[in-house]
Amino acid sequence: MADTGLQLRTRVNEDNTLTLWLEEQALPEPGADQVLIQVEAAPINPSDLALLFGPADMSTARVSGTPERPVVTADIPAEAMRMVQGRLGQALPAGNEGAGKVIAAGSSDAAQALLGRTVGAFGGEMFSQYRCVSAHACLPLNDDTSAIEGASCFVNPMTALGMVDTLHMEGHKALVHTAAASNLGQMLNRLCIKDGIPLVNIVRKPEQEALLLGQSATHVVNSEAENFHPELLAALDKTNATLAFDALGGGKLGSTILSSIEAVAARKMTEYSRYGSNTFKQLYIYGGLDMGPTVLSRNFGFAWSIGGWLLPLFLEKVGPQRGAELRERVAAEIKTTFASHYTRQVSLAEALSLEAITAYNRRATGEKFLVLPQA
Amino acid sequence: MADTGLQLRTRVNEDNTLTLWLEEQALPEPGADQVLIQVEAAPINPSDLALLFGPADMSTARVSGTPERPVVTADIPAEAMRMVQGRLGQALPAGNEGAGKVIAAGSSDAAQALLGRTVGAFGGEMFSQYRCVSAHACLPLNDDTSAIEGASCFVNPMTALGMVDTLHMEGHKALVHTAAASNLGQMLNRLCIKDGIPLVNIVRKPEQEALLLGQSATHVVNSEAENFHPELLAALDKTNATLAFDALGGGKLGSTILSSIEAVAARKMTEYSRYGSNTFKQLYIYGGLDMGPTVLSRNFGFAWSIGGWLLPLFLEKVGPQRGAELRERVAAEIKTTFASHYTRQVSLAEALSLEAITAYNRRATGEKFLVLPQA
Repeated sequence: MADTGLQLRTRVNEDNTLTLWLEEQALPEPGADQVLIQVEAAPINPSDLALLFGPADMSTARVSGTPERPVVTADIPAEAMRMVQGRLGQALPAGNEGAGKVIAAGSSDAAQALLGRTVGAFGGEMFSQYRCVSAHACLPLNDDTSAIEGASCFVNPMTALGMVDTLHMEGHKALVHTAAASNLGQMLNRLCIKDGIPLVNIVRKPEQEALLLGQSATHVVNSEAENFHPELLAALDKTNATLAFDALGGGKLGSTILSSIEAVAARKMTEYSRYGSNTFKQLYIYGGLDMGPTVLSRNFGFAWSIGGWLLPLFLEKVGPQRGAELRERVAAEIKTTFASHYTRQVSLAEALSLEAITAYNRRATGEKFLVLPQA
Repeated sequence: MADTGLQLRTRVNEDNTLTLWLEEQALPEPGADQVLIQVEAAPINPSDLALLFGPADMSTARVSGTPERPVVTADIPAEAMRMVQGRLGQALPAGNEGAGKVIAAGSSDAAQALLGRTVGAFGGEMFSQYRCVSAHACLPLNDDTSAIEGASCFVNPMTALGMVDTLHMEGHKALVHTAAASNLGQMLNRLCIKDGIPLVNIVRKPEQEALLLGQSATHVVNSEAENFHPELLAALDKTNATLAFDALGGGKLGSTILSSIEAVAARKMTEYSRYGSNTFKQLYIYGGLDMGPTVLSRNFGFAWSIGGWLLPLFLEKVGPQRGAELRERVAAEIKTTFASHYTRQVSLAEALSLEAITAYNRRATGEKFLVLPQA
């Protein structure tokens, strides 16, 4: 076993810059209830980008250092500095999830049981060669599952399952999803098909429409197409969807979904009400692909709610027992329902090349990088 | 007893106009469980205006008919007609609430118990000389309370009580209210003082600030003042308010309140989190004084929710038992906590004068009309 390992770090500096580099650090000793993972694979999720790059303008990025230890520096617009006062000067590790082999374990039974196993882990700092985590934060993969296959076993699978759990808990019958051709979206489509939940997939391009239809999706509508509104109304009418998960956040799409659900409900009302229908409409914003402001026209009555949705807050709400059940389902279906696909695999150093940064920071739907810290 | 009575009606016509007039109609016979109220006073609430005027441009209004039976006609912009297809051609009565004497009652005990009593009533059509309602929809006023004193016993008092109930049910400690110098706002201020609930009052004018401070409000901030942001942060910090009720709906104020609550919470965090604080922030939009779009900057983490809030939906949620308790409290405190003030009293015909319409359609904070259907 090595004595030290590399860890990707990100720091906001007083001089209005952001720095990314690989820090060499001593291997931590696992506590009684901890395990040390040799991280073999960690995906770059959209949710990692906010921490990695903050509000820096990555078009200004330049690289110094060596090929093995690149140092990336980018400028932060002066007016954006007040948003990151909370992390000023801190050398923060990143990487929400990943998988690897447990190479050392603390004395507890839970920790010892994982020794030698390949596990997935959630909880940050996975863009590292070695990572020490609580045994309870691990998702033990089945023996026939590799670290690469299990690298994305938390964020997307648990988010998809969390959306479906939210639907059941809050009494909805069908679901609307935006950016539906994303890795998560494709996964949610497979999950909803398997669980018999009607899903309205909203995409932005004809090829994304084709992709999902090719994956047996029943309702796919293109928000950029001319017939978007009638198509959306028809899909909502057929599915009775009253719950939507929006990955964009900004813009008017969320508002359009709510007013379309309301329009379908209003068509079924027998009496006019100036307050709109009693049909409760829920929109959750779980991402920020569109960083602009959310614009609500409020032409959807009074029976509505919009909220932030975040996996850790969801898991806190449902408790550890339900969390464990969901994790077991992920392990069982990691190669089918919850399989992830990557467009590129990179080493830690390659992840800091300007060309790679430009590619994964585009947040293009369907494009996904996998970091291999041991490469 | 008269055979007929006048009732104010509003209709959207196929020719892109809206008509308001007084319809003479036969007095209804109360059913077993109903009472007939001789309506003596009914306030014009902001919530009545949407039904009365719809999307009509009231600057185009003209009057025909006679002084006793005026007919008001106003144009509806063509593009707004699709919003009112649901009420096209229907002669709709209006008036959410009012009070008067029960002059006839059905055979049930509940109905007979109200005969001769002065009651408040909620449920529409109160801009009428006579109104037949379910006995259970009445709020019997105390003997020393006049119909004029009790005319506004539903919408504002129950809304103020509903806001405080919502605070308790959803686990918040303090409240933010916008348009806080309104009749409702002044009432909420008295209620919160009485019940010991910290309240942050947001107003738009210095004289409104003075008005509320003169009514013993502790926290009053002016959203148009230069020091609005620091003053709001200070008030949120002192009160720990995490719940806000917004009467405006449109614009950026709701978003500013959420981000300010988040900023106060973030200052108390010991560790940086890119997802923001865990402090749950709730904004309810209960009015539309600003009809423009709601604009959310989403710089307030993921632990937030924005929803519509409507008194009938609240009452449905808490059930009839709680509703009755709240009504009893209103009757007991109708001259103190729940007292309303009017800037003008008008007859049904006077309510349809262009000058009156212009005045009450301004929705100016603090300005309130009372219709006296028997005048």
